[in-house]
Amino acid sequence: MAPPKAFVFDAYGTLFDVHSVVEAGREITQEPQTLSLTWRQKQLEYTWLRALMGRYEDFWKVTEAALRFTVRRLAITATEAQLGRLMEAYLSLAAFPEVTATLERLKGLPLAILSNGSPRMLEAAVHSSGLGPYLRHVLSVDTVKTYKPSPAVYALGPKALGLPAGEMLFVSSNAWDVAGAKASGYQVCWCNRANATMEELGFRPDLTVERLDQIPGRL
Amino acid sequence: MAPPKAFVFDAYGTLFDVHSVVEAGREITQEPQTLSLTWRQKQLEYTWLRALMGRYEDFWKVTEAALRFTVRRLAITATEAQLGRLMEAYLSLAAFPEVTATLERLKGLPLAILSNGSPRMLEAAVHSSGLGPYLRHVLSVDTVKTYKPSPAVYALGPKALGLPAGEMLFVSSNAWDVAGAKASGYQVCWCNRANATMEELGFRPDLTVERLDQIPGRL
Repeated sequence: MAPPKAFVFDAYGTLFDVHSVVEAGREITQEPQTLSLTWRQKQLEYTWLRALMGRYEDFWKVTEAALRFTVRRLAITATEAQLGRLMEAYLSLAAFPEVTATLERLKGLPLAILSNGSPRMLEAAVHSSGLGPYLRHVLSVDTVKTYKPSPAVYALGPKALGLPAGEMLFVSSNAWDVAGAKASGYQVCWCNRANATMEELGFRPDLTVERLDQIPGRL
Repeated sequence: MAPPKAFVFDAYGTLFDVHSVVEAGREITQEPQTLSLTWRQKQLEYTWLRALMGRYEDFWKVTEAALRFTVRRLAITATEAQLGRLMEAYLSLAAFPEVTATLERLKGLPLAILSNGSPRMLEAAVHSSGLGPYLRHVLSVDTVKTYKPSPAVYALGPKALGLPAGEMLFVSSNAWDVAGAKASGYQVCWCNRANATMEELGFRPDLTVERLDQIPGRL
């Protein structure tokens, strides 16, 4: 792998821990883990389905729709105020523990986020996690009104950074996002935090790590 | 709901029972139900992801890739011959018990299939189930090289049948397919066989039944 000239990070699941909403879920269910996993799966499905239908709605609306589906599916009783608190958790997600130190080590090169998140959601999460000073660009799919893994999304990285995709390292914990970025020509690192199985989509990562702080030593 | 002038059926899960592959799965796992459910979920995900990536491969290849992912994820040991037998099960799927009698009652109007399946897979399933004589058209996404819920797929129905989408009843057991067809202007019946939860995609069925033989009495 050629030394990258810039790093482009996925946000949710890669820098920010989406399952940190589990705590907020305890208020309405004794199985907050199931709530969190179902919500996340459905959130992704709705991005894919809406993008394919040509019916884009921003990630806040998709996330809320996925939450409403999830509470109905799991037969959870929740007030609007309780659902509101779960949604608010998305505005103050925790970064994974090693993130700040890793970005500190990589910051000699341009660092960016490329995410499904709406601009408002990303701004809030970047602010609450304190990652703002490290990031040259925070790129949202909202610019192109579709979702990953559409090539239109991955094209935002080269456009903003002024580099070919093949000269940047795209980093994601989501195996399908790894395949999408690779199909769009990036060098790709899969941060396989949860011992997941690589997807069978015809594309493989150039590098696999378990935590982001393993990246600097592997370049 | 206006009386429909034609019926367009989804194939897998609606006419044909994809979980009838469970029997073939017993050869390689003690939890064939988990195999079947994971395989089906991943098969659908790969259609959505490949369509969004602009990397269409036909449904046979997607189904095989999903099977390979599933056995790795579930840590199942299987030979190529055993995987081959699971794939072959897709060529001789069982129709749900009420299907033939229902098509018999509806056959005064044009009946069609509109499916993700490849032409070869659909031909085999239609033949093995004996549904051929009832069907005026068997329409495959392979014509347009993308997958449901892309509007390009749903447009195949009006084109083949020479009727506007709004004058036909599209029937599917897949809630996301119901939303996709509704977004493309069809009247839509959701055959909710498994007490599933309707998706939150902004579209609702015009009619909901639990089995196909409830349709004639509800028109």
